[in-house]
Amino acid sequence: MSVQKEIPYKIYLQESEMPKQWYNLRADMQKKPAPLLNPETRQPATLEELSQVFCRELAIQELNDTDPYIDIPKEILDFYKMYRPAPLVRAYCLEKKLGTPAHIYYKFEGNNTSGSHKLNSAIAQAYYAKQQGLKGVTTETGAGQWGTALSMACSYFDLDCKVFMVKVSYEQKPFRREVMRTYGASVTPSPSETTAVGRKILAAHPGTGGSLGCAISEAVETALSLDGYRYVLGSVLNQVLLHQTVIGLETKAALDQYGITPDIIIGCAGGGSNLGGLIAPFMGEKLRGEKDYRFIAVEPATCPSLTRGRYVYDYCDTGMVCPLAKMYTLGCDYIPASTHAGGLRYHGMSSTLSELYDQGLMEATTVQQTEVFRAAQQFAQIEGILPAPESAHAIRVAMDEALKCKESGEAKTIVFGLTGTGYFDMPAYQKHNDGTLTDYIPSDAEIEAALAKLPQQ
Amino acid sequence: MSVQKEIPYKIYLQESEMPKQWYNLRADMQKKPAPLLNPETRQPATLEELSQVFCRELAIQELNDTDPYIDIPKEILDFYKMYRPAPLVRAYCLEKKLGTPAHIYYKFEGNNTSGSHKLNSAIAQAYYAKQQGLKGVTTETGAGQWGTALSMACSYFDLDCKVFMVKVSYEQKPFRREVMRTYGASVTPSPSETTAVGRKILAAHPGTGGSLGCAISEAVETALSLDGYRYVLGSVLNQVLLHQTVIGLETKAALDQYGITPDIIIGCAGGGSNLGGLIAPFMGEKLRGEKDYRFIAVEPATCPSLTRGRYVYDYCDTGMVCPLAKMYTLGCDYIPASTHAGGLRYHGMSSTLSELYDQGLMEATTVQQTEVFRAAQQFAQIEGILPAPESAHAIRVAMDEALKCKESGEAKTIVFGLTGTGYFDMPAYQKHNDGTLTDYIPSDAEIEAALAKLPQQ
Repeated sequence: MSVQKEIPYKIYLQESEMPKQWYNLRADMQKKPAPLLNPETRQPATLEELSQVFCRELAIQELNDTDPYIDIPKEILDFYKMYRPAPLVRAYCLEKKLGTPAHIYYKFEGNNTSGSHKLNSAIAQAYYAKQQGLKGVTTETGAGQWGTALSMACSYFDLDCKVFMVKVSYEQKPFRREVMRTYGASVTPSPSETTAVGRKILAAHPGTGGSLGCAISEAVETALSLDGYRYVLGSVLNQVLLHQTVIGLETKAALDQYGITPDIIIGCAGGGSNLGGLIAPFMGEKLRGEKDYRFIAVEPATCPSLTRGRYVYDYCDTGMVCPLAKMYTLGCDYIPASTHAGGLRYHGMSSTLSELYDQGLMEATTVQQTEVFRAAQQFAQIEGILPAPESAHAIRVAMDEALKCKESGEAKTIVFGLTGTGYFDMPAYQKHNDGTLTDYIPSDAEIEAALAKLPQQ
Repeated sequence: MSVQKEIPYKIYLQESEMPKQWYNLRADMQKKPAPLLNPETRQPATLEELSQVFCRELAIQELNDTDPYIDIPKEILDFYKMYRPAPLVRAYCLEKKLGTPAHIYYKFEGNNTSGSHKLNSAIAQAYYAKQQGLKGVTTETGAGQWGTALSMACSYFDLDCKVFMVKVSYEQKPFRREVMRTYGASVTPSPSETTAVGRKILAAHPGTGGSLGCAISEAVETALSLDGYRYVLGSVLNQVLLHQTVIGLETKAALDQYGITPDIIIGCAGGGSNLGGLIAPFMGEKLRGEKDYRFIAVEPATCPSLTRGRYVYDYCDTGMVCPLAKMYTLGCDYIPASTHAGGLRYHGMSSTLSELYDQGLMEATTVQQTEVFRAAQQFAQIEGILPAPESAHAIRVAMDEALKCKESGEAKTIVFGLTGTGYFDMPAYQKHNDGTLTDYIPSDAEIEAALAKLPQQ
């Protein structure tokens, strides 16, 4: 046996060891994810069509399923160096507290002002927009992490940034809004009177608190109506998963330095950007038959797209102006019950992850809000980081897997993605502290009713 | 000339390179800071007297001005490894934006859930309390950083934690309160009806928003009235500055690895814990005649203890139950005008820093709120970290010094302490964004009136 190097609490790569290319997982997939469809023609969306909505270079990335590696431009690498590499943390204290023989690691993406991994793609998308000579970009945000990240990225490249923020979040999270404003973004509660789709939704549902799907529609309409603007999206798309592979590449490089091979890799899954980025290089090895891993996607019980949805073509937005994607979905006007993991309240799932799940290469599970917050508080007290509610979904399942190891006596290696911090989620923590959080599981009838509205295939 | 190693954006020490001892600056001072006085006898406070208020080991540290190095217990080192070493960041982007030949570095202490450097001393104080077999500790908090840090530390060591939070902050910062509650602390708005001093202050000033000095008095009274409790303090004291030397020791070790000698070292100064900790090892070299540095303490114009106060014995708290310290002070019932840098609103300054300032070994300057927030926003946009208002005082002066270098063409090396993040200070940022922040400079008459109330020397 070789001598094992002592594993520090936090493994930081050297700046020189940071990934210089993103990894394009689709290049290694035998059966590729299905293409996006033009909503009018129902034919695969072309580069020209996508370029009307997205920046051209991003549209090229969206369609590229052949090149396994794509260079990260120097300007993006320089920005990454401001807040990356992110630490891979050995959860020594958590292991001890749980009394588990498992080795637990988490990749912590919360050490930046956006508070999450979203900045990894935001800076890439802002860069390509700037490079194309655009004036600005539009987007939507729910929990606010993506909007904050994009505001930071646009500020850095001196681009205008128009954020449509789901109205209920806009009102519940005024501080998120102020962070975006501090970075110079304009923030509009959605649905708004500024767009046709917003006015239509307001007319149909007066007083609605809005939804991600609705805010996407408003952001797309605004981008299309303004000269020199494009729409950018923080999850779901291939391009976003591509940028987020820095998470997995750094994680793998750090583990490799210590000769560690994980058994289980766990991530929360809303649109799939964090999970897709974390697992990508490991999944690549699995696809190429080099190694095997268990991958677990963790969904909120209130929005179970992988576990209870259908794998079909669906609109990415409520207003049906975006391309259709083949994905596990609950239907584009499914409104998840109120839960504080705002970032996981999306009706669909990344096409790439959907295809991998459909091929049986990945597992999925659901957890409920109250058990998630119990895990969040426990983690905060033991590991000293107050997690975002989204991230705490992964913590919950990582702890459960570690406790199974305690029963079985197995010293499995568990890696999970700690996507962000919960500093702007304190109203939800307050409910947890007050004991007033509740759980909700949609009934079969409710899910069936939503699925019945899926577009004709 | 030797070949200069390329300096990364962030210099992280290896875990094995982290300091294993705190540095006791007072051991290297020829003229020592004046001792604390017993408020009743006006004689130097003895170990026995101090041990009634403070944990015994901390009282020993408070009085120790002879041992230059004090071992950091293993349990504290282990906790430090969860969130330290803190990065020393080369502000490449800021330098470029300012167009300055200066080299700017900042030591970033905000990458932990308390959001500031306060955790460095909180964990030490909680450890010694636990070691002594205490049930719990009491403390005060203003902006909330110290209270949060202590809550985290007490949770880790399973100690009860009672926090008296300045009432105006308690009301303005409900999320800070919830972080503390999530870590299991009880939080009481001060002044409260739970203590004699609180009731007295409430009777004299009904409807008062409270002050740090008043909250200290309540916390001390509570500790003295409960069996198995002691009072702990987050700044001002020698013991706190001692623990905070991990900041300076890490900074110096990181700079030394690249052969960098700073010209100017800058820190914001409220009670002095961050500044004292950052400059300690450098000041040690200056005291020993090995090297010279410029040190700049930055105060808010509303609370100018070093720059406009008097160097005399004064009470550390409004209720006059604490020992007297010889320090630059504005008087223990000076109420600073409302400013959002809550952490800098203390009437006095660490005895050690006061003595160094009195000996001419350190400079001090004041800045105003609006220029501080302009610097904060600019820094956030350029360097990607939204700073605490307190920290932004140091940013303001660091930027000003860098701009002087631009004029003079000098490539000075500037190091400043970025003590924390501003995620719980968004109401203040909102005022900045809305353009409604104002400045205030106390008049000479106002300062004179406050100084006239100082105790007879």
